[in-house]
Amino acid sequence: MRIQALYHVRSDAGSIAARAQGIAVEQSVEMPLSAVEDARVMAEIVGQVEDISDLGNGVFAVRIGLAAETVGGDAGQLLNMLFGNTSLQDDVTLRDVTLPSELTKKFHGPRHGLAGLRQRVRVTSGRALTCSALKPQGMPPDALAALAARLARGRLDYIKDDHGLADQTYSPFATRVRAIAAALRIATAETGHPTRYIPSLSGDAGSMKSQVAVARAEGIDTVMVAPMVAGVSTMQSLVNAFPDMAFMAHPALGGVARIAPELLIGKLFPLFGADTVVFPTHGGRFGYSAQTCRDLAANARATGHGSMPVPAGGISLARTAEILDFYGPETMLLIGGSLLDAKSRLTEETAAFTAAVAAHTYR
Amino acid sequence: MRIQALYHVRSDAGSIAARAQGIAVEQSVEMPLSAVEDARVMAEIVGQVEDISDLGNGVFAVRIGLAAETVGGDAGQLLNMLFGNTSLQDDVTLRDVTLPSELTKKFHGPRHGLAGLRQRVRVTSGRALTCSALKPQGMPPDALAALAARLARGRLDYIKDDHGLADQTYSPFATRVRAIAAALRIATAETGHPTRYIPSLSGDAGSMKSQVAVARAEGIDTVMVAPMVAGVSTMQSLVNAFPDMAFMAHPALGGVARIAPELLIGKLFPLFGADTVVFPTHGGRFGYSAQTCRDLAANARATGHGSMPVPAGGISLARTAEILDFYGPETMLLIGGSLLDAKSRLTEETAAFTAAVAAHTYR
Repeated sequence: MRIQALYHVRSDAGSIAARAQGIAVEQSVEMPLSAVEDARVMAEIVGQVEDISDLGNGVFAVRIGLAAETVGGDAGQLLNMLFGNTSLQDDVTLRDVTLPSELTKKFHGPRHGLAGLRQRVRVTSGRALTCSALKPQGMPPDALAALAARLARGRLDYIKDDHGLADQTYSPFATRVRAIAAALRIATAETGHPTRYIPSLSGDAGSMKSQVAVARAEGIDTVMVAPMVAGVSTMQSLVNAFPDMAFMAHPALGGVARIAPELLIGKLFPLFGADTVVFPTHGGRFGYSAQTCRDLAANARATGHGSMPVPAGGISLARTAEILDFYGPETMLLIGGSLLDAKSRLTEETAAFTAAVAAHTYR
Repeated sequence: MRIQALYHVRSDAGSIAARAQGIAVEQSVEMPLSAVEDARVMAEIVGQVEDISDLGNGVFAVRIGLAAETVGGDAGQLLNMLFGNTSLQDDVTLRDVTLPSELTKKFHGPRHGLAGLRQRVRVTSGRALTCSALKPQGMPPDALAALAARLARGRLDYIKDDHGLADQTYSPFATRVRAIAAALRIATAETGHPTRYIPSLSGDAGSMKSQVAVARAEGIDTVMVAPMVAGVSTMQSLVNAFPDMAFMAHPALGGVARIAPELLIGKLFPLFGADTVVFPTHGGRFGYSAQTCRDLAANARATGHGSMPVPAGGISLARTAEILDFYGPETMLLIGGSLLDAKSRLTEETAAFTAAVAAHTYR
């Protein structure tokens, strides 16, 4: 039972066979095959080069079969076996992975996913969901709560913490979450729309679990984790521990290891339990191409019950229609700084954003 | 109180000032400055470009002052603030960091470090320490224990798990650790040398803590974590929870290309509590230059009480003298596959390795 891992390798034609074999060994037994004395290990555990194809321009696609047995059911160990040591070699990127179904079953996938995220905000129609972020960090809890209330009065579906908000002295997690939850209870009673707050978790699994308990006591049912900062096993553990919570994955630190974003954010984060994944969309201040973003979103929706793609990263209100046409309605659109720039007109600008999403006719 | 973060940025001279400012904003408030209404946030929290210098060839060194307040004392949050979103932009690498002393104090640094690693194996002289690894994964606990015994009879100082060994069905953590610890008790009684076993931890902080408890019950006092797989906050939490344990950091998923290894492995892992750091040395199957390796080792030794550098990654026995001269005696030399390739002569080859290290005269 093999995992199919697809790598892109910079090489010349004369060296690629040996280089591919080197990756297969590095990502499995990591020792000279001449020293492997156990017949079962040679047959079942050593990685196997299954295909090499020339992509042109000195890049080759190399497909390697890795033993699923080496992973067990741990998300961190899966990343370790896919790219642990090879991430240290700069001629290789990890492009894609296909898991055998026995292994896929060991991971939760998005438990609430597309439908659960819609149910939380009572949007079952075909429109996209809306989201904004609480910024800037450095503000005290009361100021962030007041900001959240103004955004909620514009009828947003979700309001997430900026991923920089953690458990800082000037804005401790518990104080912040209680203040914002209280402000949203008042605002949503006014609007009649159940705007949801998504707090950002930080620290190790233990402190994150305490934070979820604080959030849950305030009626919060969706939280955010940055899996590459926290460790993917940490997110997996939270997903197992809190079946009632939906999880939003933030891409912070996701660029360090040369793993294709379509795979890391689009497939693996959902596989490990993210119900919704944030990523920087094309044409903003990050370098992902339109094709990468399209594939990432499609991958996320196709994982298990589906993970909701959240294009973000400097989207302006003026781009709403274009972005909606590009991603379609099974999307949560996140506009942060561009809304905040409206300052005193924040609620009106937010209302314009949510109205535009509600009224949009998809091409 | 500012963190000094040094980035290398690909740019042209006409764009670098704006690009540097963009990074300063991305890694702090992540919103248009025009929308920041709080005077304290503008003065104290927004990142400040402190220096830009042209390194030639279209690369600029950009030094940015980031507010230490945003970090608190959480290792994951420090990485998040240094490189969270910017890791997603491929024109930037994070090269170096200088923390204000108030922030450094919030992290443990290596608690046992250079001296503690020597005390464990009763090597207080000026010779380098020795290490090998248990491979290949796929072997059952008894076979790994027999292998460990043969290595120990060659008088190694440390024997670590291959970082692929986790908690697999064919080799569950607790069964493996007990079998290997028992085998080493017998072998070290024969040799009189206190060879130490370093098991590799996996899963989230909770499962790692259970694993440490299993190891401690067997008298084990040193364990291994891959901080980029586990999450740096997870390692930090273990360091806080187990003051008697020394921690070895494995570089898996450390992705060379975007965070300088001298910084990530040489400075940050030790800062977060690694007593010893494994890294792929120059001239092996990884691409680090000699200068990178020298700087990485020097950084590790200089952090707090000092973290022991462990050059590794395909070192052959024939390179022992060269490597020892390069790194000097405050080093743990790790040879894995090359020893295992001796097969039936494993103990003799190991003995030759440890004897060569003991007898080496440093140039």
